[in-house]
Amino acid sequence: MTDFQLIRKLRQESYRKIVLLVLDGLGGLPVDLGGPTELEAARSPNMDRLASEGTLGQTIPIRRGITPGSGPAHLALFGYDPVQFAVGRGVLEASGIGLSVAKGDVASRGNFCTLDTEGRIIDRRAGRIPSDQAIPLVERMSQIQIPGVEVEARHAREYRFAVVMRGEGLEPDIEDTDPQQTGVSPLTARAQTTMAQPTADLFNKWITEAHRCLADQPKANGLTLRGFSTDPGLPQFPDIFGLRAACVAVYPMYRGVSQLVGMQVQDFPGVQPEDEFNMAASIWDEFDFFFIHIKKTDSKGEDGDFAGKTAIIEAVDGALPTLLDLNPDVLCVTSDHSTPARMRMHSWHPVPTLLWAPATALPDDQTTFGDRACAQGGLGTFPATDLMPLLMAHAGRLAKYGA
Amino acid sequence: MTDFQLIRKLRQESYRKIVLLVLDGLGGLPVDLGGPTELEAARSPNMDRLASEGTLGQTIPIRRGITPGSGPAHLALFGYDPVQFAVGRGVLEASGIGLSVAKGDVASRGNFCTLDTEGRIIDRRAGRIPSDQAIPLVERMSQIQIPGVEVEARHAREYRFAVVMRGEGLEPDIEDTDPQQTGVSPLTARAQTTMAQPTADLFNKWITEAHRCLADQPKANGLTLRGFSTDPGLPQFPDIFGLRAACVAVYPMYRGVSQLVGMQVQDFPGVQPEDEFNMAASIWDEFDFFFIHIKKTDSKGEDGDFAGKTAIIEAVDGALPTLLDLNPDVLCVTSDHSTPARMRMHSWHPVPTLLWAPATALPDDQTTFGDRACAQGGLGTFPATDLMPLLMAHAGRLAKYGA
Repeated sequence: MTDFQLIRKLRQESYRKIVLLVLDGLGGLPVDLGGPTELEAARSPNMDRLASEGTLGQTIPIRRGITPGSGPAHLALFGYDPVQFAVGRGVLEASGIGLSVAKGDVASRGNFCTLDTEGRIIDRRAGRIPSDQAIPLVERMSQIQIPGVEVEARHAREYRFAVVMRGEGLEPDIEDTDPQQTGVSPLTARAQTTMAQPTADLFNKWITEAHRCLADQPKANGLTLRGFSTDPGLPQFPDIFGLRAACVAVYPMYRGVSQLVGMQVQDFPGVQPEDEFNMAASIWDEFDFFFIHIKKTDSKGEDGDFAGKTAIIEAVDGALPTLLDLNPDVLCVTSDHSTPARMRMHSWHPVPTLLWAPATALPDDQTTFGDRACAQGGLGTFPATDLMPLLMAHAGRLAKYGA
Repeated sequence: MTDFQLIRKLRQESYRKIVLLVLDGLGGLPVDLGGPTELEAARSPNMDRLASEGTLGQTIPIRRGITPGSGPAHLALFGYDPVQFAVGRGVLEASGIGLSVAKGDVASRGNFCTLDTEGRIIDRRAGRIPSDQAIPLVERMSQIQIPGVEVEARHAREYRFAVVMRGEGLEPDIEDTDPQQTGVSPLTARAQTTMAQPTADLFNKWITEAHRCLADQPKANGLTLRGFSTDPGLPQFPDIFGLRAACVAVYPMYRGVSQLVGMQVQDFPGVQPEDEFNMAASIWDEFDFFFIHIKKTDSKGEDGDFAGKTAIIEAVDGALPTLLDLNPDVLCVTSDHSTPARMRMHSWHPVPTLLWAPATALPDDQTTFGDRACAQGGLGTFPATDLMPLLMAHAGRLAKYGA
C-alpha cells in the first residue's frame, strides 16, 4: 500500500481547520560564525509564542543534501514525493501563468535571446528586456498557425514565456533547445524517443515561424525552449486528504503547482501578508485547508539581503494576528526550502518548521522560532512529505490504523 | 535485499539477553499548557537511573501522523513494517484467545447484538452482557455443523467472540456483516471477490444457524461478524533474529500477535508487573529475548485517568528491581503507541523509548525518562521497526556488514 492509499483509507471528517503558512526560502545561515540566521535575527514575538505553545522540527524537502527547486519543494509540502511525482518545468511555468496544460498537451518554457548576424546566441536572456517590450512579441507568436495542432504562447515575465501545443498523439520527450552557452546557435528540438519525433518536428516548425516574427527585433531576435513536458496527472490533493483546499498565493509558480494538485486558487487584491491573511479570512467557512504562500523571504535571500529577509519575516509576524484571529485548529509555519542570504540561492539545509495545534500537540522545550531551535524540536528531523499526515492527525482527520 | 534479509545475513550468536518492556500507551500529553505528561509526572527513580545510564529516543510506530491500533503497533516493535505485513482483525482476535488460525482458515471477530422484533439492531453490543452470560451462548454456537467445513467459536470477553472456519478453498475477502449503526438489520456476509463467494455462503449458513441458537435470548439475540481474515503467514521472529523469544503478557491480543510471529507465549498466575517479571525470571536461562507487556497504562489512558496512568508507571518502576536483578544485557523500556489521558484514545504522537545496555550504549545527556527528554535523546526520532536491529546490535548479535 502506498502512503496515499493509507491516507485515503484512514482519513475522516472533522470540523478542524488547517493552515499551512509557507515563508518561501525561510531557512538561513549566519553571516558570521556565532551570529544568528535570518529567522533567529528577526523579532517575531507572535511566532515565538506559537513556538512556546507548539512543537518544532526540521523538514527535509527532497532528500538530505538535495537542493530543491520551488516546484518539487511545494509538491513535497503537499505530501507528494517529488522524485516519484516529477512535474516538468514547462508545465509548471505554463500553469503558473494560467495557461492550461491537459494530459497529452506538451508545454515548454521559453526565453527570448539575442542572436548575432550568424545566428549565434550573444545574450541568453535578450538583455533581460522588460515585460512591456516582451508582451507584444509573445502576442505576435500567438498568431502562428501550425497545421494539425494548436499552439498557444503566453508571456510570463521579462524575457520569459510559455508555449503549449495541443493535438493528437503529442509526446513530451524532447531535448531543450537552449544550448546553455553563448557563441553557438539555439539547438533544434530533438526527440528523445521515436514516438516524440513528430512532436519535435512540429515544435521546430513553430520555432522557425517564431524566429520570423522576431527578425526585426534589436534584442529579442531569437528564442530557446526548455522543459518540454505534459500534465503528469497528479493524484488530486482534495481526493487524497479529503480536504476542501484553498491556495492563497501571489506568484504564478505557486498558484500553478497548487492548481495542478487540485487546490482552488484564489484571486485577491494586494500583495502584502495582511492581504493574503484577509483573503483567507474571507473564505474561512468554505475551506478546510489553507495554503498561504509568502514569496519575498525567498526573493530577499536570493538577493543576498539578510536584513531585508529578516524584515519580511518581521512583517509576516506583525500581520499574524489577523490569521490567528481566525482561530485555526492547526497552524504550521514552515517553508519549501532554505534560501540563505549568504548563499544567494536555494540550499539543501533542513527547513525550520513550527506546528501549533493547542488541542492536540505535545509542546516541546523550545521557546523561540529559529533554525537551531527547530533542530532541537520535539518533531525531530523528518521528510517534508510527512508533514501533511502530521497536520491531518493534529486536526483529528485520520482514523486509527488497525485494531 | 529486504531489511529482514539483511538481519538474517548479519545475525550472530551471543550470550547477551534482551528485554523489551512495553508499557502500552505510555506516551502522553500535558493536561495544562506547561504541565507534565503522565510519564513526566510519575516518580520513577529506577527508570530515571536507567535513563541517566542509557540513551533515549522517540519511535514512530507506523508513519508520522498515523495512529496505530495495538496489532500493527506491536508488529512494528517486533520489526515488521505494519503496512507491509497487515494482520486482519479476525486473526488477531482469534489468536489472542488461543484459537489457532492456520493458513487457509478464515477467522472473524464476532459481537453479540440485540435485535428488535423486526430483526433490526437496537444495541450493537447486546447491552455489554457479562462474560458469564455470553460463554454458554458461544458454547451453543460451537455445536453448529456446516457440511464440508469445521467451524469453531470461542468467547473473548463480554459480548465479544471469535469464529474460525477451516476447510478446503476458503477465501477471506468478505465484507463485515456489522452495519456500524442501529435501526438496520445485520448485513449478510458478502464476498468481495468471486473466489470468496463459496466462503461467504458458508458463513451465511452458519450465521442463520447461530441466530437460531440465540432466538430465546433477551439481549444477545443477534450477532455480527467483522474482520474476516486468514493467517498472513508472517516470517517468524525467531528465524529472522535468531532469538529464542518468550512473550510474557496478560491480555489475549498481545499474546495473539506474539504467537503469530512465533514467540513462545508463557502462562503464569497473577496479573501484576511483579508477576510478569517473576515469570521472566523463571525462564531466564531458556530464552534470549523477553517481550514483557504491561496493559494498564493504556487502559488508564483510554479512561482519561491521568493520575491512574501515572500510578501504573510508578508501580512498574517499583517492581523493576526484580527485572534488573536478572542482569539483562539490553533493556528497552518503550511502548507500542501513545495513549494520552487527555485524548482518551490512542494517538500518533512519537513514543518515548529508553535503551539501557551498560556494555555497549552511548549514554546521552538525559537524566530522566520523560516524553520531552526522549525528544532530546541521543537516539533521535526513528521508525519503531528500527528498534529490533538496535537491540540486536547492543546485544552483540549483529555482525559487520561488508569488509
